[in-house]
Amino acid sequence: MRKSAADRFRHLFNRSLVFVRNQNQQYHHPSPLRSLSSMASDSPFPVTAQNINPQVLKCQYAVRGEIVTLAQNLQKALQANPDAHSFDEIIYCNIGNPQSLGQQPITFFREVLALCDYPALLDKSETQGLFSADSIERAWQLVDQIPGRATGAYSHSQGIQGLRDTIAAGIEERDGFPCNANDIFLTDGASPAVHMMMQLLIRSEKDGILCPIPQYPLYSASITLHGGHLVPYYLDEATGWGLEISELKKQLEEAKSKGISVRALAAINPGNPTGQVLAEDNQRAIVEFCKQEGLVLLADEVYQENVYVPEKKFHSFKKVSRSMGYGDNDICLVSFQSVSKGYHGECGKRGGYMEVTGFSPDVREQIYKVASANLCSNITGQILASLIMSPPKVGDESYESFMAERGAILSSLTTRAKALEEALNKLEGVTCNKAEGAMYLFPRIRLPEKAIKAAEAEKSAPDAFYCKRLLNATGIVVVPGSGFGQVPGTWHFRCTILPQEDRIPAIVTRLTEFHQKFMDEFRD
Amino acid sequence: MRKSAADRFRHLFNRSLVFVRNQNQQYHHPSPLRSLSSMASDSPFPVTAQNINPQVLKCQYAVRGEIVTLAQNLQKALQANPDAHSFDEIIYCNIGNPQSLGQQPITFFREVLALCDYPALLDKSETQGLFSADSIERAWQLVDQIPGRATGAYSHSQGIQGLRDTIAAGIEERDGFPCNANDIFLTDGASPAVHMMMQLLIRSEKDGILCPIPQYPLYSASITLHGGHLVPYYLDEATGWGLEISELKKQLEEAKSKGISVRALAAINPGNPTGQVLAEDNQRAIVEFCKQEGLVLLADEVYQENVYVPEKKFHSFKKVSRSMGYGDNDICLVSFQSVSKGYHGECGKRGGYMEVTGFSPDVREQIYKVASANLCSNITGQILASLIMSPPKVGDESYESFMAERGAILSSLTTRAKALEEALNKLEGVTCNKAEGAMYLFPRIRLPEKAIKAAEAEKSAPDAFYCKRLLNATGIVVVPGSGFGQVPGTWHFRCTILPQEDRIPAIVTRLTEFHQKFMDEFRD
Repeated sequence: MRKSAADRFRHLFNRSLVFVRNQNQQYHHPSPLRSLSSMASDSPFPVTAQNINPQVLKCQYAVRGEIVTLAQNLQKALQANPDAHSFDEIIYCNIGNPQSLGQQPITFFREVLALCDYPALLDKSETQGLFSADSIERAWQLVDQIPGRATGAYSHSQGIQGLRDTIAAGIEERDGFPCNANDIFLTDGASPAVHMMMQLLIRSEKDGILCPIPQYPLYSASITLHGGHLVPYYLDEATGWGLEISELKKQLEEAKSKGISVRALAAINPGNPTGQVLAEDNQRAIVEFCKQEGLVLLADEVYQENVYVPEKKFHSFKKVSRSMGYGDNDICLVSFQSVSKGYHGECGKRGGYMEVTGFSPDVREQIYKVASANLCSNITGQILASLIMSPPKVGDESYESFMAERGAILSSLTTRAKALEEALNKLEGVTCNKAEGAMYLFPRIRLPEKAIKAAEAEKSAPDAFYCKRLLNATGIVVVPGSGFGQVPGTWHFRCTILPQEDRIPAIVTRLTEFHQKFMDEFRD
Repeated sequence: MRKSAADRFRHLFNRSLVFVRNQNQQYHHPSPLRSLSSMASDSPFPVTAQNINPQVLKCQYAVRGEIVTLAQNLQKALQANPDAHSFDEIIYCNIGNPQSLGQQPITFFREVLALCDYPALLDKSETQGLFSADSIERAWQLVDQIPGRATGAYSHSQGIQGLRDTIAAGIEERDGFPCNANDIFLTDGASPAVHMMMQLLIRSEKDGILCPIPQYPLYSASITLHGGHLVPYYLDEATGWGLEISELKKQLEEAKSKGISVRALAAINPGNPTGQVLAEDNQRAIVEFCKQEGLVLLADEVYQENVYVPEKKFHSFKKVSRSMGYGDNDICLVSFQSVSKGYHGECGKRGGYMEVTGFSPDVREQIYKVASANLCSNITGQILASLIMSPPKVGDESYESFMAERGAILSSLTTRAKALEEALNKLEGVTCNKAEGAMYLFPRIRLPEKAIKAAEAEKSAPDAFYCKRLLNATGIVVVPGSGFGQVPGTWHFRCTILPQEDRIPAIVTRLTEFHQKFMDEFRD
């Protein structure tokens, strides 16, 4: 069969996220696209890979990339024939999608959503027997906050005012500093919010965004889609993925020397894929750096509920900057929050918000305009975003069961993170930093030369080669480190801590057996 | 008080959607941005209107623009003091948002959504007394279609497979031609789908998209945001907003002669803001034109359920092209559908899909990648999109009540369209084509010279001047024609037909009185 254009291009691009740092610490973004325009098209279709937006072609999003397509094909094979492989199911550890791996939704949240979806229930006596009293009360409050009780209407493009008030109150309670409901933009999860800010800030390829490496590929994908330049700053694996201000300064200066206008710094705390929780003094230094350099601080704080070590605590960048005395006119700060993470893990509801502070009124108007061009985010997600920022309180009927559900999930995640980290650290040539927070482990794998050569022969990045082998042998899906960026010559993968606790021992066994065999095959 | 930068810029831009056609029929997109970069910034903020993405600054979205902000301020004033104005409420006729004006959701749809949001209800006996039998059965089917019954998980980036199967079956039933579930991309309403296609197709300002004028400003906003060129084709008001192939050809040739590479043609059927329903032979000619010219046909078919005249019928462009013998390899066609319109009007749920046919596998892979960078659309919206394409059938418990609810809404919309059209046609100097479909009337207002001069003195477009006067006098919010584009020297506004039927007489009275007074004040 003729190789498709997509196949040919994939080979050109499949390393575009293998971030390369040469001796001068220069960051290369390979641009094989230049050669594309000269390729003759033999397609009968007017739209071809050669004539679409090259930014789309260049963009990569590894957590849903090649490895997931392979996994889906294996799953289809298993459905057709359960004996097709040596394993009986695919375990998706590629993405932070807790409920897909059996985590149950929080009852109170779902009660409220159901009542808001079908408010006629609120008037019926049978409802009392089916729903908790506080879910009914909350649903009444919410429905009353929606203008005209129109639960199916477009809302204000920033989201329903009453819900923004609730979220602002929740932020105030979390931080101990004021929050203005007009700073809240409700969004369909954090991803569209990040895209919106990139769209606002990036004017051309000469505009740069400082991003951690390793990073969550939403950032690289979004920067590429909007035609900007990713300016990397490397997290230090040796110090538990430490974020050094000296590294920020160095990379900023280097970018400036190349004519890049650096506009913002993205910080992911707790870290994705790296799982570290930033120390407060480190955050203060980051705020100071952004303040001094006139950078927008894009604070990805979607894992704020996911901290697993007693010695670390989540502090929002807003709280940190306010505690330094910096007010709304001193620092441009955008904090992203999502209903997809935390203990609730409501990924499919696509809810979230960004808190936008430190922008002039005319720029805020532009942000509003971009939001309005998509009308509004979905109301179910909006309601859920308000619920996660105002869960049941002491004295509410649901309080104890809510706290029990929440506690069970978070303590189990702690257990799972620890168990997987320990198992990974026992593997030959593997070291893995602790997951202090978030939902991932990002172990470093020292691959034998023979394995690297075998990968090259398959035109695959060595870590992708390892991950594909793992998938084919065990059904476990993890994402190669090259999808997130890593120091050149090092290899990693990202593995979520989300399989249910009773499944962890079997996963550890499968992983350990696979790794042993892999090393036996390739050990130098 | 110092005039804000936003104010200063607004004056520069507030006519950028007043589409200007000069004697050579040339289409001008004013670019006042060039002058901006030279303006000195006196802002203490690092991000200013001068240094954000100029495409964002240039983009306009009139249906949520200045007039809506004015309306919201009036509403706040009324809340503070009910006697603040001569009217007691704001009537939002600016946007197709039926439930905000009192339309009730379809019971069956909401029953199913509630059960899917809180599936624990499905196991409880009390549920039988609260929900229809077929809503329970449907919810079971849906929950079973979701992998792992995980109603809170990210889905496949195109949407849940089982829901896409249902939608494909619904399209087959509608069209009488096959539909492949793999062609369906579920989206958070039609807007993100349109943005996605623009992002895919537009490479630079030399890429053009043929759009009707008047058009729904989503198209102009999206083309501007993605840096492309809107190539207008004018609908002929005199023939009921007729779409002439000769006009398409002329505009295409003119664009080509300027070095514009035209990539797609957007057709809105039924029309927004113009309300016309295309005749099938007209659609065949459009398909043939796109086929011959190698253009992607972007078919906005979100009003497919909204047809109010017995002599017209909705035909999808897919059906029309297949009936011409054009298959998947012959024509690039994207059909947009939304849960926000139709008889259901579930705008806040943000559900919809696009059916993508005629693209090569490698381009489809790119569309999938862009979809995956936002993970997935919201599951509630996905479920609702499947429900509107597979409503209750004869024999189902809900069938009769569903048909009654649906019929009442559609027949009332027909009545309201007629009543408003007749009232508008009675106004001095106003002519209004029939709303054959969709949710809008787009009357032409012949403004006296004196009114045009008064508008100029206020630095306002004449139709915006009229609409602001109308709002301030009556509380009725309509959108100036300049937000949609119109033949230069003509003035229009868009008014939805959505206020509840019992409100129409009062609205007509207020509108008529206002218009009379306006004309008395400005008549030449």
